[in-house]
Amino acid sequence: MQAVLQYLEEHQNDFRAEFEEFLRIESVSADPARAGEVQRAAQWVRDRLERAGMRHATVHETEGHPIVTADWLDAEGAPTLLVYGHYDVQPEDPVDLWSSPPFEPTERDGKLFARGSADDKGQLILYIQAVEAWLETHKKLPMNVKVIFEGEEEIGSENLSTFLTSHAEELSCDYTAISDSGMFGEDFPTVTIGLRGLVYAQLDIETATTDLHSGSFGGAVPNAANVACAIVAKLKDDKGRITIPGFYDGIRPISQVEKDSFERLPFDVEEFKKSIGTNATPGEEGYSVLERLWTRPTLDVNGLLSGYVVEGAKTVIPEKSMVKLSMRLVPGQEPKKIEQALVDYIEQIKPEGSRVNVQLMHSGEAFLADPEDAAFKPAFDASCRALKAGFNAEPVVTREGGSIPIVNEFSQVLGCPVLLLGFGLPDMNAHAPNESIHLGVVERGRRSLAHLFGELMK
Amino acid sequence: MQAVLQYLEEHQNDFRAEFEEFLRIESVSADPARAGEVQRAAQWVRDRLERAGMRHATVHETEGHPIVTADWLDAEGAPTLLVYGHYDVQPEDPVDLWSSPPFEPTERDGKLFARGSADDKGQLILYIQAVEAWLETHKKLPMNVKVIFEGEEEIGSENLSTFLTSHAEELSCDYTAISDSGMFGEDFPTVTIGLRGLVYAQLDIETATTDLHSGSFGGAVPNAANVACAIVAKLKDDKGRITIPGFYDGIRPISQVEKDSFERLPFDVEEFKKSIGTNATPGEEGYSVLERLWTRPTLDVNGLLSGYVVEGAKTVIPEKSMVKLSMRLVPGQEPKKIEQALVDYIEQIKPEGSRVNVQLMHSGEAFLADPEDAAFKPAFDASCRALKAGFNAEPVVTREGGSIPIVNEFSQVLGCPVLLLGFGLPDMNAHAPNESIHLGVVERGRRSLAHLFGELMK
Repeated sequence: MQAVLQYLEEHQNDFRAEFEEFLRIESVSADPARAGEVQRAAQWVRDRLERAGMRHATVHETEGHPIVTADWLDAEGAPTLLVYGHYDVQPEDPVDLWSSPPFEPTERDGKLFARGSADDKGQLILYIQAVEAWLETHKKLPMNVKVIFEGEEEIGSENLSTFLTSHAEELSCDYTAISDSGMFGEDFPTVTIGLRGLVYAQLDIETATTDLHSGSFGGAVPNAANVACAIVAKLKDDKGRITIPGFYDGIRPISQVEKDSFERLPFDVEEFKKSIGTNATPGEEGYSVLERLWTRPTLDVNGLLSGYVVEGAKTVIPEKSMVKLSMRLVPGQEPKKIEQALVDYIEQIKPEGSRVNVQLMHSGEAFLADPEDAAFKPAFDASCRALKAGFNAEPVVTREGGSIPIVNEFSQVLGCPVLLLGFGLPDMNAHAPNESIHLGVVERGRRSLAHLFGELMK
Repeated sequence: MQAVLQYLEEHQNDFRAEFEEFLRIESVSADPARAGEVQRAAQWVRDRLERAGMRHATVHETEGHPIVTADWLDAEGAPTLLVYGHYDVQPEDPVDLWSSPPFEPTERDGKLFARGSADDKGQLILYIQAVEAWLETHKKLPMNVKVIFEGEEEIGSENLSTFLTSHAEELSCDYTAISDSGMFGEDFPTVTIGLRGLVYAQLDIETATTDLHSGSFGGAVPNAANVACAIVAKLKDDKGRITIPGFYDGIRPISQVEKDSFERLPFDVEEFKKSIGTNATPGEEGYSVLERLWTRPTLDVNGLLSGYVVEGAKTVIPEKSMVKLSMRLVPGQEPKKIEQALVDYIEQIKPEGSRVNVQLMHSGEAFLADPEDAAFKPAFDASCRALKAGFNAEPVVTREGGSIPIVNEFSQVLGCPVLLLGFGLPDMNAHAPNESIHLGVVERGRRSLAHLFGELMK
């Protein structure tokens, strides 16, 4: 191990230089004009994998952007780790809010700023560098490693699912590792064991066949904007609980281990409020902020539109309104049941004189790995040891409030434990201007991954 | 009187031709490109008044569009009637919904279709023609008549108030007549005695200093869209009553006479629902539809905007939301008090974590003339007799749910009874495509006004 760590130490400058080269490729998957850049990034990743000593490095064309795979399978009888990452990035808009050009990596305050620095180029590349350190120093890896890097994560991973299914055998593995998430704080190497699921719906409400004059008709006709508000207001009670019948059915209570672990985290509610410019943290009664963010389901309106919304006053009773709303789900909640319960409940509570069409747009289950589960425990313990060695700090166990749909894909299609080892700090600004990754975390994360290959063998 | 009526009969074709000429002038006051057309309409009206035999016909320039006045004051010792109307019209958008060109008057089914046919060119011109009939046949009017026709009614009558104040003496009168409203039905000549007032406000709600990701933050932060809905939902109870403290204070109950009169009107709720494409007439419990439309205050949301409102799904917790809302007021409610009560109440009910700025945009008092009031009764009775004679049908007494701010201006600045004698039918589509006036009503309305000059003398 000493040789591997020394290799990483000695090649820091090279690693930094190639990372910057990678960041300069404008692989914005959402922008058709930059499809060539996405292609170039795929090729760059393939070449880099080959240079690291991995085999069968291949760019697979899809109906969208390419998928890159490679493997090293000479550790006979040893288990296999599959690494997932994505080399595409979010659009850089709004460009004028960036302090330095989004595709010109710039160091400030120990952080490297660039689009994709944290999400996910800066995390993906650490695996390649860790593999190279092992292969250069030992001519072999302690275990078998496969990688799959896609170029459509930021636009919904449309072609990944088909690829996973049609290549299930080539991708078969004992563990999957994904580094595309965050860590609790700079000195808190993090194993994320849970993600929330999602139901996203749009309500289209109609109360008349034409907008009406609020003078001539006000007082005796339904108003689609008021109806929208009435429906939304009825979806939660005054204790912050969602009122859809059956909504909380089947939710698995969090274990005492997890609860204790959360309570030990140095989470400062005042700092949290300050960081987003609010003076309250309203939500479901009886749960801490972290519990609500990670382990409890939610209901949020994401968009509201009705009537006259530009400058000035128009005395109109709107005939139509639109509500976009999403619910974050937690383990035990079934998205299909929640969708049906929402549809039924809205039919029940909608005010007289209103017609509501509920358009179900997306849904996905929550993800939860249980550290006490026999199938997950060895991988969980190994990753904790690797993180501890790499960071020289005690790892923490967290969940994330967001959803990473591909995690369930991997878990279900490939049927193996998924390790979520994220290296983005809370201020990384993924999807926002001034995205960054902490250069200290980059070093420590790379060391952790080098340890991981060995620890998973123990 | 016989001679006057015969004159009207004999000049029907001329009146129709000049009406069409008037309608072809595109006097859209809101359109700066057609300021010349508005000017041309003012000149047309002035010339027409002079040709009718009125004196001092004058186009007064203002900071906006002109005001036209004229008078005939030779009926020494007789009272004076001031007639108000407006020669400007609403924009014709959306043009493609018109069945015939908006500025090319077209007859269909006994109605003349054109922008301004009902609102207000087609009502204003009847006074001029009635005056002409008297002056041509008798060389005099039974009473003194002054007219004031403005060109900015559709854009807020911005310069009228100043003009009324600065010309209060020249405009002094005993009665004011305004024909810029509707009638209950073709065979129901109508005296409108009440109009609702208005308070219009915009709520700007903020819950954070940035939009937040609904996964990372959902469950522990305020959501400006949910806040908007919660506030709006709390403004009414489940019996349709507005919950703002003091909102109903001081409302004058409607008289039994009015209540009886409303009940006699052949109002068909099913027809009403069908005409606007709704299946319910929700509102304040304990009042009929007409009572709610004419005599009860309302609260309607006119616009709602928050978060992501275009195609697709975005999992955002909006930092901001906007609600436009208006309240129609009834006699006894004071706009300034209602505004303050709204501001105070919203401060009280706003959910934790929200900041709400209430922007008060417009307000105006309700109007109500009491037929039993000594100052109003003679004019009221006279107009009923005139309408009965002109329409050969029993007049009805109604209110309108809308607001006509200038009515209070006239009532307050000139301090005299205001007669609202409208000739638009419920299907006139004022402010909408396919505006029309019923040609039968035009004839009967013109006769009624000719009678009015005599009846007001009795």
